[in-house]
Amino acid sequence: MAELRKRHTETAAAEDSDKGQEIDSDPREDLDSEDDKSPDEKADIVLTKTIPTGTDKTPEILDSALKGFSDRWRNWTIRGIFTFVMIGGFGLLIYAGPLALMVATLIVQVKCFEEIINIGYAVYRIHGLPWFRSLSWYFLITSNYFFYGESLVDYFSVVINKQDYLRVLVTYHRFFSFCLYIVGFVWFVLSLVKKYYMKQFSLFAWTHVALLIVVTQSYLIIQNIFEGLIWFIVPVSMIVINDVWAYIFGFFLGRTPLIKLSPKKTWEGFIGGGLATVFFGLLMSYVMCQYQYFVCPIEYSETQGAMTMECEPSRLFRLEEYTLPETMSGLLKLVGVKNTVTLYPFMLHSLSMSTFSSVIGPFGGFFASGFKRAFKIKDFGDVIPGHGGIMDRFDCQYLMATFVNVYISSFIHNQSPQKLLQMVLSLKPEQQLNLFYTLKENLEKRGIVQPP
Amino acid sequence: MAELRKRHTETAAAEDSDKGQEIDSDPREDLDSEDDKSPDEKADIVLTKTIPTGTDKTPEILDSALKGFSDRWRNWTIRGIFTFVMIGGFGLLIYAGPLALMVATLIVQVKCFEEIINIGYAVYRIHGLPWFRSLSWYFLITSNYFFYGESLVDYFSVVINKQDYLRVLVTYHRFFSFCLYIVGFVWFVLSLVKKYYMKQFSLFAWTHVALLIVVTQSYLIIQNIFEGLIWFIVPVSMIVINDVWAYIFGFFLGRTPLIKLSPKKTWEGFIGGGLATVFFGLLMSYVMCQYQYFVCPIEYSETQGAMTMECEPSRLFRLEEYTLPETMSGLLKLVGVKNTVTLYPFMLHSLSMSTFSSVIGPFGGFFASGFKRAFKIKDFGDVIPGHGGIMDRFDCQYLMATFVNVYISSFIHNQSPQKLLQMVLSLKPEQQLNLFYTLKENLEKRGIVQPP
Repeated sequence: MAELRKRHTETAAAEDSDKGQEIDSDPREDLDSEDDKSPDEKADIVLTKTIPTGTDKTPEILDSALKGFSDRWRNWTIRGIFTFVMIGGFGLLIYAGPLALMVATLIVQVKCFEEIINIGYAVYRIHGLPWFRSLSWYFLITSNYFFYGESLVDYFSVVINKQDYLRVLVTYHRFFSFCLYIVGFVWFVLSLVKKYYMKQFSLFAWTHVALLIVVTQSYLIIQNIFEGLIWFIVPVSMIVINDVWAYIFGFFLGRTPLIKLSPKKTWEGFIGGGLATVFFGLLMSYVMCQYQYFVCPIEYSETQGAMTMECEPSRLFRLEEYTLPETMSGLLKLVGVKNTVTLYPFMLHSLSMSTFSSVIGPFGGFFASGFKRAFKIKDFGDVIPGHGGIMDRFDCQYLMATFVNVYISSFIHNQSPQKLLQMVLSLKPEQQLNLFYTLKENLEKRGIVQPP
Repeated sequence: MAELRKRHTETAAAEDSDKGQEIDSDPREDLDSEDDKSPDEKADIVLTKTIPTGTDKTPEILDSALKGFSDRWRNWTIRGIFTFVMIGGFGLLIYAGPLALMVATLIVQVKCFEEIINIGYAVYRIHGLPWFRSLSWYFLITSNYFFYGESLVDYFSVVINKQDYLRVLVTYHRFFSFCLYIVGFVWFVLSLVKKYYMKQFSLFAWTHVALLIVVTQSYLIIQNIFEGLIWFIVPVSMIVINDVWAYIFGFFLGRTPLIKLSPKKTWEGFIGGGLATVFFGLLMSYVMCQYQYFVCPIEYSETQGAMTMECEPSRLFRLEEYTLPETMSGLLKLVGVKNTVTLYPFMLHSLSMSTFSSVIGPFGGFFASGFKRAFKIKDFGDVIPGHGGIMDRFDCQYLMATFVNVYISSFIHNQSPQKLLQMVLSLKPEQQLNLFYTLKENLEKRGIVQPP
């Protein structure tokens, strides 16, 4: 969610957020003005106030050090500190390598799921409903087994094929996953209790929507990481950059309100944040394109027994000279500048990503903000001091990750010849032979292979 | 949902259902006994009684012909007639061929979606909420565009590649689908209205769960049809057979209640229905295995400009002699019968399917029945006279289709060499050449191809 506040509503730029978006400064402000609610809506408010959302999980040392500060300044300081803590943590994770990033993604996913489910419990006032907590976690584990299995199988097939029991798990992966799911499904049906039917079905739906948002999209994130760290780091950073700069622009120049849903967002912040994202996106891409560590797809090397990121960088990450369009180059000739520009092709893709993260990205935040208002909560949780829950930081990240994944599969990723060969070699010998001769014939016809 | 009624609760076997499951004879019976409901649950009942669910859409001619009958007999007759109408319709569709079946699947899907969404509208009492109906339909179209696209692309790639504009649609299919979805997402966020936040988010979730149930599973059905009509007809019929025979067994022998959720189901019906399903499943498979029309995968023939079902039947559909296990064959020798049995291998798979459809299948029905009770409705709709809504007939079919799809992908479907070749040929020429030589080397090493 872009930070597009009007100048007069906040007074410090230090309150920027780092990993997605910021807490809606105070949804309760909005809440108080809702005098037109029906009695049962009012009942909802009372009941959902029991949802554990607050931002006072501050370490004791900090708490005592900030004793003299007013509440407002105290909060800003804490928020600022934890912003840097998170950015630092992100840096460390990048340094630690792809495996650490994947594990972190998994942890974030589990925490987000927990936060969403907890809100569900509070909304439907479930206390002592048989099995429900266990069932939600069971579905989380099942779907993770399915999705992580699907992606890891591809990358670790060499190792997996060595162990017989693992090979069985791989070959029938979908079947086992389906069986696990069916067990949960039957369990749910058996746990139905007359008095609670409606609540149980609502929470069943709630759980599945949470899985759809959190688990499937985490899977897409993992896939992006495998394509090369740059496909993960650049988009994540773009959302953060958009957030921070939209806040700064909104703070200094904001005049024109953007959307009713988030009354503090302004057009000035929206546009300024977008321009900054494009600029920093290009800069970041330019730097990162120069390191194999960032641009190489991640592969598991059997000989090293570890993930490797070494490769001949693809065309995307090699400097190329582009000729500018006629109209533009005419202008440049007048100034005496040459009409070509040297770029990494990846930088052009970075333009698409920064456009998406600054135009559509904020809608992920509006959505989350609407959701929080719908269920009358301030934050999704209270894990990060000064920031709220994990989900408060990651809502737009999920939307962005999906975009990047689709973008890669549509515009970047051609079938990897290596994977295709693996698929061919898993055919029956006579089919392999058949395919071999057909391919040979085809290549000869097209003159790519010389007939003997 | 298996029909496992106790003998004393119903009196005519003619009331069997044909395509999945039967209306829970009278959920209101159950409803009346719910004296322990809270006031707001009572309010729900009043409000959801406005949901259009009844079974009185009877054609006028029938209505007047049955004037003299008591209500009960009238209903049975109508139900019986429409059971045969539906079975006849199913037969006609099979005769009309795969394209007709796919179109029918699509129509059923749209109707099911409509029924689920209508219940959502009624439950959340949405009247005049801006854009909501349009949005639901928009998401339905978007997800169908994505899923149908994904499967049709595979099968019609030859035709599609001829048209330039189609090729663009295919190459960037995921990207276009994602863009369409994002438009809907942004539209939803922009349509949020303060007073209705909670209802809007609930319906948004409702729509997505409906899509998950209806659209994704229809896509799996279409995939099954492409594998060969037998993979579609046998499972669909199994659910119907299980339904009918569980009803008959339950009617004549039922004594022991099975599950609280559906008080009229009995263990006798459950077991008898299961045995009948296994028997008829084997019989049906044996007959259908003999016709190419049923067993051949469906392919689009460019020369004929139509779908074709001609092939050399795979090993699954050719008679094979199986030796019975030692213990069993000793017994048979005593009786003087030979210890081998000749079967189509498909018949063994039919055993797995009939087991699933009779053990797990009913849970699809229990789930639907619980859902209907949760939202205090009798049927999902009133489209089929005497039967209720389309969704009332198809709930277990979706579960079954998913099982069959997973089953095929785990145990039956090996990579088709033809598709693999297509993928290889879509690589860049130098990659094709590379793959060719690596494959050649590999085949030579293993002695499958003789080195020159």
